[in-house]
Amino acid sequence: MYYNKFLILFFSLFFSLFNLKAQDKNDAETIKNIFDEILTNDACYENLRYLTTQIGGRLSGSPQAAAAVDWTKEVMENYGFDTVFLQEVMVPHWVRGKKEIGRIVGSEKMGSFDVAVCALGNSVGTGDEGVIANLVEVQDFEELKKLGKENIQGKVVFFNRPMDPTLIQTFQAYGGAVNQRGAGASEAAKYGAIGAIVRSMTTSSDDFPHTGSLNYALNVPQIPAIAISTKDADLLSKLLKDDTSLKFYFETHCEMKEEKLSHNVVGQITGSEFPEEYIAIGGHLDSWDMAQGAHDDGTGCMQSIEVLRAFKALGIKPKRSIRAVMFMNEENGLRGGLKYAELAKKNKEKHIAALESDSGGFTPKGFSIGGSDKVVKKVSAWSGLFKPYKIYEFEAGGGGADIGPLKAQDVPLFAFRPDSQRYFDYHHAANDTFDKVNKRELDLGAAAMTSLIYLIDKYGL
Amino acid sequence: MYYNKFLILFFSLFFSLFNLKAQDKNDAETIKNIFDEILTNDACYENLRYLTTQIGGRLSGSPQAAAAVDWTKEVMENYGFDTVFLQEVMVPHWVRGKKEIGRIVGSEKMGSFDVAVCALGNSVGTGDEGVIANLVEVQDFEELKKLGKENIQGKVVFFNRPMDPTLIQTFQAYGGAVNQRGAGASEAAKYGAIGAIVRSMTTSSDDFPHTGSLNYALNVPQIPAIAISTKDADLLSKLLKDDTSLKFYFETHCEMKEEKLSHNVVGQITGSEFPEEYIAIGGHLDSWDMAQGAHDDGTGCMQSIEVLRAFKALGIKPKRSIRAVMFMNEENGLRGGLKYAELAKKNKEKHIAALESDSGGFTPKGFSIGGSDKVVKKVSAWSGLFKPYKIYEFEAGGGGADIGPLKAQDVPLFAFRPDSQRYFDYHHAANDTFDKVNKRELDLGAAAMTSLIYLIDKYGL
Repeated sequence: MYYNKFLILFFSLFFSLFNLKAQDKNDAETIKNIFDEILTNDACYENLRYLTTQIGGRLSGSPQAAAAVDWTKEVMENYGFDTVFLQEVMVPHWVRGKKEIGRIVGSEKMGSFDVAVCALGNSVGTGDEGVIANLVEVQDFEELKKLGKENIQGKVVFFNRPMDPTLIQTFQAYGGAVNQRGAGASEAAKYGAIGAIVRSMTTSSDDFPHTGSLNYALNVPQIPAIAISTKDADLLSKLLKDDTSLKFYFETHCEMKEEKLSHNVVGQITGSEFPEEYIAIGGHLDSWDMAQGAHDDGTGCMQSIEVLRAFKALGIKPKRSIRAVMFMNEENGLRGGLKYAELAKKNKEKHIAALESDSGGFTPKGFSIGGSDKVVKKVSAWSGLFKPYKIYEFEAGGGGADIGPLKAQDVPLFAFRPDSQRYFDYHHAANDTFDKVNKRELDLGAAAMTSLIYLIDKYGL
Repeated sequence: MYYNKFLILFFSLFFSLFNLKAQDKNDAETIKNIFDEILTNDACYENLRYLTTQIGGRLSGSPQAAAAVDWTKEVMENYGFDTVFLQEVMVPHWVRGKKEIGRIVGSEKMGSFDVAVCALGNSVGTGDEGVIANLVEVQDFEELKKLGKENIQGKVVFFNRPMDPTLIQTFQAYGGAVNQRGAGASEAAKYGAIGAIVRSMTTSSDDFPHTGSLNYALNVPQIPAIAISTKDADLLSKLLKDDTSLKFYFETHCEMKEEKLSHNVVGQITGSEFPEEYIAIGGHLDSWDMAQGAHDDGTGCMQSIEVLRAFKALGIKPKRSIRAVMFMNEENGLRGGLKYAELAKKNKEKHIAALESDSGGFTPKGFSIGGSDKVVKKVSAWSGLFKPYKIYEFEAGGGGADIGPLKAQDVPLFAFRPDSQRYFDYHHAANDTFDKVNKRELDLGAAAMTSLIYLIDKYGL
């Protein structure tokens, strides 16, 4: 990239204020101030660096999760928010134990060798004896049904349906594949399978096993389940085509322990006009144990804190009470989200909106809006204020897992929607680390969130 | 990120065909086919892997540049394009030589120590004796003027104006800072400076020196110039504040050698109706020597080839002749771009459009359109066809450096515009490597480019 062209090329893209109404002018100026404040400040990025590199992976019930609770409380107190408090919540305590082993055994062409696997979250372990069996490869649950017990009994089922690469929104592709991980083990167990292997939920071809929760169905034997990297899934599938007699051995040492006490962390700037009305902004503080929980969901947590920090730094005094909520246990139980909604109801905290950031710290594309037509219309009308920041998408849609339980209280729910192309490269895998986050992308997301909350607070919904 | 929410959250975002005219329906289908073909194929990504990891950095006149010419010709021949040919072009041959040394000498607080620097492209070298002198830090050329000869003579000028982080389009921030690199050395030499140090042109705070061309002014002494990493620039500036007596030593072994013969590489699918009308799509094949030239501009080259590959794979027979052009020497001379335009004129090749991809292989945001109001209006009217792919920006603007010389022949010029947030993290630095490219982002860009070319070819301009 040579430089002279820039002198020629770039017509001013600066936001023209002239086409806006007077009121919008003030909003445009405030939003510009918000973006400037966040883009020129290191707070969000440096907070994320600490959370991810100094605390690291923080699965519910782990010492790191406790450390993250303690540290985020301190961060918000140090920022001088009006109130910072914890909400007690009991969480599942699943531990991975010793590193897993996955092995293709006695393949015709390549003999026996190890492949990249990890236990799925909430899975039972195999213990030291492991599991060894022939494999049945399937694409979906229909195929299981067709094969029936006679073909599945005593075997390990290999779920190998990839995420659809032609879907532009990768979360759609995830939605189309993830039932294999969530319900595959129990579906296979219904037909007598003794284990399940699931192709990693990622759009990339890589060597990382991507973990994530499974849910065991009631009254079905709980069989151990693992994820296998996409590269090894492709290899295994290829070998199986020629040689259905090969076996697969795996060994996992995970177990579900007794529930533990943990916490949501809530920081609040109290409203100047309607302190009894709340707007919650959140991400989940827990993360999978194999990585640093950067994009999932350190970024969402740090962005939520950044919204309140930016309000304070710019002297914006909200009319309503604005909360940054660090939800605990999104990954394997959702207890924090459920507890938050329970307490909101019990304490009669009227929430006028909730916003979740749990799709990674990438360049913002927009927001999805889960509310009445009136709410969708009202919020969409603000979209012009976001165009200078190349944010175009304001669409009806859902909010997110953690704020989902507030729906029963008729709270309009919003999801922050960043660019989704890289998200599943890192999702639930060992490479979800701080260095995968770009400071500008993270900041632009935080600024977009702050701007939306500023408008919701100012105009109501 | 838990999975159940996806079952709830995602309303169908699929492209609704129902609101389109019959003709647009066909176009929408073709464009869907283009995206599907490219997203499900490894060609573009694997070609980029080869270019970047097997050939590597390929500065004009280097053996790697010659290898890249040879290899891209072969790739396009193997794809069975109708014609593949070379255009001879003489290029500058600048070589970096031995690794550079940069050293802060005798600072009050930290003594003497090395910092991360590299020679700027086209710079003269210091030779073994190096340069050692006191420093003058400035933000711009105005400041040089104010300081005058009496303060600058015999010193090294340190240009330290950062890229503006509040500009959303990072290329604008680059445009606002890069005159320090391009013209700083000569501007400083006018006042008797004996060397120039330029803050790296990047939006990130990192330890990489980012190189790039300078241009010496006529009749001004040619003084050696280097880039310093942003982190070390900040440190140096801080030390200078307390201690203006510190010295800086640097040693560079670069030199401009005799011009060498090199080539543009052109692959063509010949038009079925108007073979004498051309549409050129290109990137530049040369790249800086310190890295692999991935985002700058391996991605643009491989995307350009991918446009033609996708046409063939889908059996789309263009009316006009479509060319993928690998331009040589964009980085430090633009000889390839100039030669291509010269030959087009000489051979009376009427170009109806040219499209350049030289802003990285990131998620597409849209295109800028350099042409008459009529052209801008016509092309903008197609924007609805790109919305399903989350591509929204069709704006008047420039084309690019390599296709720029075609402007004199009244050719409408287009620039592919991807998301710009990460571009300058890697730009002209040692980390511009293959692993920084996401396959999906690269493919989406190639598919967007193919779709635009399909429409231009079909409807003309």
